[in-house]
Amino acid sequence: MTQSHADFEARLRQIGAERYHDKHPFHDLLHGGRCTPDQVRAWVINRYYYQHSIPMKDAAFMSRVEDSKLRRIWRSRIEDHDGTDSNEGGIRRWLRLAEAVGLDPDYVASTEGVLPATKFAVDAYVRYVRDKSLLEAVAASLTELFAPKIHKDRIAGLLKNYDFADDRSLSYFRNRLKEAPKDVAFGLQWVLDHADTQEKQDAAAGALIFKTDVLWSQLDALYAAYVTPARIPPGAWIPGDQTTLAKVS
Amino acid sequence: MTQSHADFEARLRQIGAERYHDKHPFHDLLHGGRCTPDQVRAWVINRYYYQHSIPMKDAAFMSRVEDSKLRRIWRSRIEDHDGTDSNEGGIRRWLRLAEAVGLDPDYVASTEGVLPATKFAVDAYVRYVRDKSLLEAVAASLTELFAPKIHKDRIAGLLKNYDFADDRSLSYFRNRLKEAPKDVAFGLQWVLDHADTQEKQDAAAGALIFKTDVLWSQLDALYAAYVTPARIPPGAWIPGDQTTLAKVS
Repeated sequence: MTQSHADFEARLRQIGAERYHDKHPFHDLLHGGRCTPDQVRAWVINRYYYQHSIPMKDAAFMSRVEDSKLRRIWRSRIEDHDGTDSNEGGIRRWLRLAEAVGLDPDYVASTEGVLPATKFAVDAYVRYVRDKSLLEAVAASLTELFAPKIHKDRIAGLLKNYDFADDRSLSYFRNRLKEAPKDVAFGLQWVLDHADTQEKQDAAAGALIFKTDVLWSQLDALYAAYVTPARIPPGAWIPGDQTTLAKVS
Repeated sequence: MTQSHADFEARLRQIGAERYHDKHPFHDLLHGGRCTPDQVRAWVINRYYYQHSIPMKDAAFMSRVEDSKLRRIWRSRIEDHDGTDSNEGGIRRWLRLAEAVGLDPDYVASTEGVLPATKFAVDAYVRYVRDKSLLEAVAASLTELFAPKIHKDRIAGLLKNYDFADDRSLSYFRNRLKEAPKDVAFGLQWVLDHADTQEKQDAAAGALIFKTDVLWSQLDALYAAYVTPARIPPGAWIPGDQTTLAKVS
């Protein structure tokens, strides 16, 4: 049976409550100050791959949208990440974080050393948006519903526990707190309006579940590679490599 | 043998000299004032499909570009068509032309009535950019090298020969005269720099030939459907339909 907007939104939020990666044990370590400097660096290196792919995902979405007005609204997501004349953009901000944790930003930007499992998960997301329905593509973006809390926890936890953390190095997260709400308000309303049958509501819920899997599996891969018992796969970043500073405490 | 930049650029320009659609007989009719009002309308309806697909093509390109700086440069093409806060954009301008020639702009924007052969050609271009190398995708855009002349001829020919033509209805073409040169200067340099082997130069030349085919075949379809002996395929726009005015003289 087709759910009301309110019931369907509650169902989507419940998916976040059960599956969003704020519940992953790696985030407890990270935000609690229990990551080693190299574990923080491994996180920054791998998460960069996600950051750098998001505008490609959004462009893949726009490449399938026939409505000029919808494309124009969606374009602001790309601007937020790639930058504009008045905004350096999220990718540059992430590389500033990389520098602050003692990594060569050019190395991070090269995406060498990223875990294969990270690439598989993130690339699967880009392909998903290219191949599935527009409704599923928008619904997959709704993990941003759950992002403000994790960004606030992260800013507080990093500031409290790590020397590298300051306004400059954490500007990525502060900016996302400003940018994400407008995107997710639009995306949620669009999904509620367009998922007008049970079949479409199920598809949208499935897309959000898929996206939580994309996020969670990146942290599983990070945990397996760099947390006890660490088992770094061939070709992935080795602690100490490409490290210009050791100022993470 | 790999050609010098100068020789390779001359080869690309020669492709335009031989194959660009300024040589198509439909343009002689259009610019010479020998199109009937309905033939002008058929052109506006079908060419809209190309206009509306170009930002999707550019987004498909961006969805494959890993370099944030290149994506940001390319993004201005989408802005030119979809608009910004300070620029209504090429798609709106084209719909203004549609209105001026006496068509319902909502009908034109619906892309109903577009010739199937137009859709096949334009969709092939979007898919080409999604599937082929980035070099081929950029090289395919270089038909813009040849566009300023046809836009100038068109503005002069339409102003001279048709009552509907004025600054407002032709603003699409005037704007392209301002916008296209910056795009094509960047695109040409990028192709010259990246086509650094004979194999890549051949691929880039092939891409430009492909694109001239995309443009030419749209006019062939238009000619076959709406010029003597007209043979309109099932489902395509029928002269007189959706026509709100008869002010084209």
